[in-house]
This record gives sequence, structure tokens and C-alpha cells, in this order.
Amino acid sequence: MRQAGRYLAEYRKIRAEVGSFLDLCYSPEHATEVTLQPIRRFGFDAAILFSDILVVPHGLGQEVRFVEGEGPKLSPIRNAAEMSGLSLTGMQSTSGPLEPVYEAVGRIREALPAETALIGFAGAPWTVAAYMVEGGTSRDFHAIKSWALTDPDGFGQLIDMLVAATVEHLSRQVSAGADAVQIFDSHAGVLPDGAFEKWIIEPTARIVAGLRGTHPDVPIIGFPRGAGLRYADYVAKTGITAVGLDSVVPVTWARDALQSKLPVQGNLDPVYLLAGGTKMLDAADRILDALGDGPMIFNLGHGVIKETPPEHVTALVEHVRARTA
Amino acid sequence: MRQAGRYLAEYRKIRAEVGSFLDLCYSPEHATEVTLQPIRRFGFDAAILFSDILVVPHGLGQEVRFVEGEGPKLSPIRNAAEMSGLSLTGMQSTSGPLEPVYEAVGRIREALPAETALIGFAGAPWTVAAYMVEGGTSRDFHAIKSWALTDPDGFGQLIDMLVAATVEHLSRQVSAGADAVQIFDSHAGVLPDGAFEKWIIEPTARIVAGLRGTHPDVPIIGFPRGAGLRYADYVAKTGITAVGLDSVVPVTWARDALQSKLPVQGNLDPVYLLAGGTKMLDAADRILDALGDGPMIFNLGHGVIKETPPEHVTALVEHVRARTA
Repeated sequence: MRQAGRYLAEYRKIRAEVGSFLDLCYSPEHATEVTLQPIRRFGFDAAILFSDILVVPHGLGQEVRFVEGEGPKLSPIRNAAEMSGLSLTGMQSTSGPLEPVYEAVGRIREALPAETALIGFAGAPWTVAAYMVEGGTSRDFHAIKSWALTDPDGFGQLIDMLVAATVEHLSRQVSAGADAVQIFDSHAGVLPDGAFEKWIIEPTARIVAGLRGTHPDVPIIGFPRGAGLRYADYVAKTGITAVGLDSVVPVTWARDALQSKLPVQGNLDPVYLLAGGTKMLDAADRILDALGDGPMIFNLGHGVIKETPPEHVTALVEHVRARTA
Repeated sequence: MRQAGRYLAEYRKIRAEVGSFLDLCYSPEHATEVTLQPIRRFGFDAAILFSDILVVPHGLGQEVRFVEGEGPKLSPIRNAAEMSGLSLTGMQSTSGPLEPVYEAVGRIREALPAETALIGFAGAPWTVAAYMVEGGTSRDFHAIKSWALTDPDGFGQLIDMLVAATVEHLSRQVSAGADAVQIFDSHAGVLPDGAFEKWIIEPTARIVAGLRGTHPDVPIIGFPRGAGLRYADYVAKTGITAVGLDSVVPVTWARDALQSKLPVQGNLDPVYLLAGGTKMLDAADRILDALGDGPMIFNLGHGVIKETPPEHVTALVEHVRARTA
């Protein structure tokens, strides 16, 4: 999960200096600084690149803006003909629009302590496509579901392009110094049977295979948020190295059905981190009790809520460190 | 699922005459008319009362408004002290604010053909509380989750009041002529382990037990949308008669884990109904193939999308009738 953000005063300061959110993503100097901030403050075992999943559609040529308080706005693409403005060329060149992101990865890797892993990331094709087709965040995903379910060939062209762009984007991050990558499928939970296989599992499996072509040993963490029962299929069929658990997957089921096959991370509801105190520590203990005997990375099930007091994070890290020492 | 709505011209006409959405819910004459419209047009086996889950907080004394294009707005209640304006008295009187709803139930039952069942409904306490605490729709449910997770005793007072109000509301609907009732828990999917048991399963079980006290034989359909793996626990522990499936539950799992214990309904993604044609009929066939040999009610996994052409509904009804004749 994103570690930097508005809950940190030092982030808000940099953000105010830089201006827009995308400018921050594309400034190697400032993206490096905000990536390092939570490592300095909390001493996490791993850092995650400060960036956004929407740099990929931006790199493909779609207009992307972030409107303060409203989230991202994109000029929506709703059929194959409307893809005419998109191109892989920029992303596949070594002087393309996303070069500042890879430069940030190199700088961060140099600045981090050797024992601190750096995680790169990308959005999964379905989730990135959801923003590209809906034109921003969505409550019901009618536009993308309609296109995917009624015109799978046309929609498949968009997914194919995103698979290629994502392999490129992750590969460049690993080449620049990322020790592992994560694939965020935040909207994996909205698809019915069959469509989940076709638009979540298959594209992710193709990305994993593609990335392994250039970087055979890089750990790849998949995060199909909201997948529910389909977590098991996703783990069995995508080829990922480890899986991120959202906050609603029952941990005992995750232990038996998933952790028996690969390392797991996540699950703590960020509302507990917002709350702090014994409720937070008890919730962390329930996760450690269930998953602590197998391969696991302690993590949240979703991003840090912006009102979270940073000292709650400090207390949580101390607690988890003490239990797993 | 709601059968009437903006996808029907005859509904839009009545709605324009009546004015506000809540006025429509509280007009026995007009609520009766819009409940009957889809039965006349499509000849469904069952009608569902036209009403809204937010009549319960309204009946308890909270301010509820519907803003066109924005959804419901409530004056939020975020701790036990702010519950001081709420009272069960009105809902427990026989001249309370929800009498027009029960009058509508009686009129509809009289007007319906004898072979057409009438389904009454209420929101489950967690889902209704989500609107009461967040003050409307929400993307992340931070306010209600924070309250529920950090002050379970205080939040429990709100849930206790909603359990009592819901038993009353459903009991009155059955007394007025409803043949079955459904409990909609649209936001059941956002709670982590433990909290799901406490705020979804337990309150629903108490409502089922309470309603059975006055109406021992009334069928009660539970709909814990987004419950994922927890559907099995919900079915095992709430005492419901039948369960509604959302659009993402795998049907083969539902057959083995749920339908082996009780009748199921739902699952068709309303996007298929929007799309129409062979994609829609194929999707219906997949549900009928998996669940058609056991006890089932063919239904959607969520409400009809307002852009849906009514002739798609006609075609779907004909197809399902032909297959199950």
C-alpha cells in the first residue's frame, strides 16, 4: 500500500511546493523524497515507489488530470475506435513520458539502506481500464462492464495494449532498481464469474509471464482486491509470487487456501490504524495469530486514511516488530 | 430487487406527477400504482413493494432527503449522544409516520392476482446505519467503521434500535399482506472478520427471530451483498429462509455451499440486462445450468440499471419461462 501521503506533514509540505499530484509523480527529485519520508519516520522493511497507476494511460497518450477533492479525471474511451489516440510507442522508447518515474526508482534504490527492499508497481489492466473507460472513479462500473461483456473483442484490444504497457512499465522499474513489484487490481471485485477469469486472471498471468521473460526471478505480488472466493483461482492461475489480502478476506481461510501455497500480505483494515490503541493492536494480533507461522508480510488491506495520526503507525510497527522479533 | 424505476416510462410519468421520491414512498395510491406497473408489463411471479430502506431512519426521527442526481442526504449521527433525536415510539404506534407504507402493502395485495406473491422489505441494520452515520452514500465507510470498531457499545445502541425498528417494520408489512420479506444488506461486504459476525450476522439473526415471534411461517430472504466467503456463515447462522446472491458469487460454489441448505435467488449482473441479446440469454443460462436443479428464484444480483430497455426484461422473462416450464 502507498506509504507516503497526506497523513504526513512532511508529505503535505512537498506536495504544496510541487503543485499538482502528477507533477509530483513526474519529478524524480520529489518522488524520491516522498518515497523516503515514511522509511525515515517509521523504518519499514520495504519502501514502495511513490507514483500512481494512472501514469500508464497517461504514457499511452490519454489525457489524465487530478482534480483536488474529486480524484482523477480522464477523457473516457468507450470503444475500440476511441483508442485511436493511444500508442505504445512512447512507453516503449527510452526517452518516453515515463522516464522520470524510472529515474526516481534509480535514485530511491541508491538512497535506501541496502536492507530495505524497494517495491515498484502498476495497476492491473482491468483496474486501469476502469479509469480509462469510466473517465475517473466509479461506483457501479456500468460503462466498462457493458463494453467488456458485450464487445469482448473490442475491449480485448484495450486490455492487450495495457498488458504490453504494464510489462514494459514493470520491467523498466525492475531494471532501474526495484527489488519486487506489485500489481494492484483494486476493482477486481466487480466482475461476475467467467468475466473474472477473462479480465482479471488471464491478463495478470500474461503480465507475470511477460515480466519473467526479462526478469525471471523478480518477486511479483498480486492484489486482486475484493476477489472473495476467486482469490484461490487467482493464486492458482496467475503465477504470482505472493498475494495481497484485502481487509475482508477471513484470515483463517487465507491461511488454509492461500498461504499454504505462497506468501501473503495485508488484511489489516486501515480503519484500525485510524483508531489506534488496543483495538488496533488486537486486530494486528488476530492477523499475526492466524498467519504468523507461515510466510507473510505484515501490511494493511487498503491505503492509509488521510486523517490517521502518524504515531499510530509508529505504535503498530513497534508492536509487530516486538511480536515477530 | 426493485422492479419499478426510471427505466419504465410509466414510472417516470407517476414520479413527475408526485414530485419527490419520499412523497412517492408515502403515497399509498401512487406507491401501489408503481408497484403494480412492472407486474402488468412483465407478469413476474412476485411483486416487491415500492418503498425505500431509508423510511426506517425517517420513521425514527432522522432528517432524510433525496437530492436528484446525488442520492439520499441525512443529518449524520456519529455517536450515541447524537441519537437523542431518535425514537421508536412513532414506529411502534398504529398512527405513526410509516402507516402509508403499510396501507400501500394492503392495497397492493388486494390488487395483485392471487398467484402473484408480494414481497415486503427492509434494510439490514448495518446498511441502514451506514446511511445514518455517513449521512448518505459512501465510498469508504470510514465514519461508520470507525464508530463500530472503536465504540462497539455506543454503536450497538444504534444497531439495537434498528433491530427493534426493523422487526416492527417487517411485522407490520406482513400483517398488512406481504407474503414474504427481504432484508437488504447492501453494504455487508465492507466489514473485516469478527465485525461481520457482530454487525451483520447477529443483528440479522435477531430480526429473523423477532419476526418469527409474530409471524412464524413467513419466508425471510436475506441478501448480504458482497459477503463473499462469509455467505456460508450468514446462511448457517441467521435463520433466514432463502438467500439472495450478488453478481460476483460463483454459481457453482453457491450451488454446493448454499443451495444445498436453502433456496437461492439472484446473481444475474444487471449489466447483462442492459446489454440484452444473446450475451444476456447466455448469462441467464449459466445461472440456470448451475442452480436450476435445486430450489431457486431467478433474479438479478443488483437493481435494474436506469438505461435498461424494458424489452430486454421481456425477452429475459420469456427465456427463463421457456427454460423452466
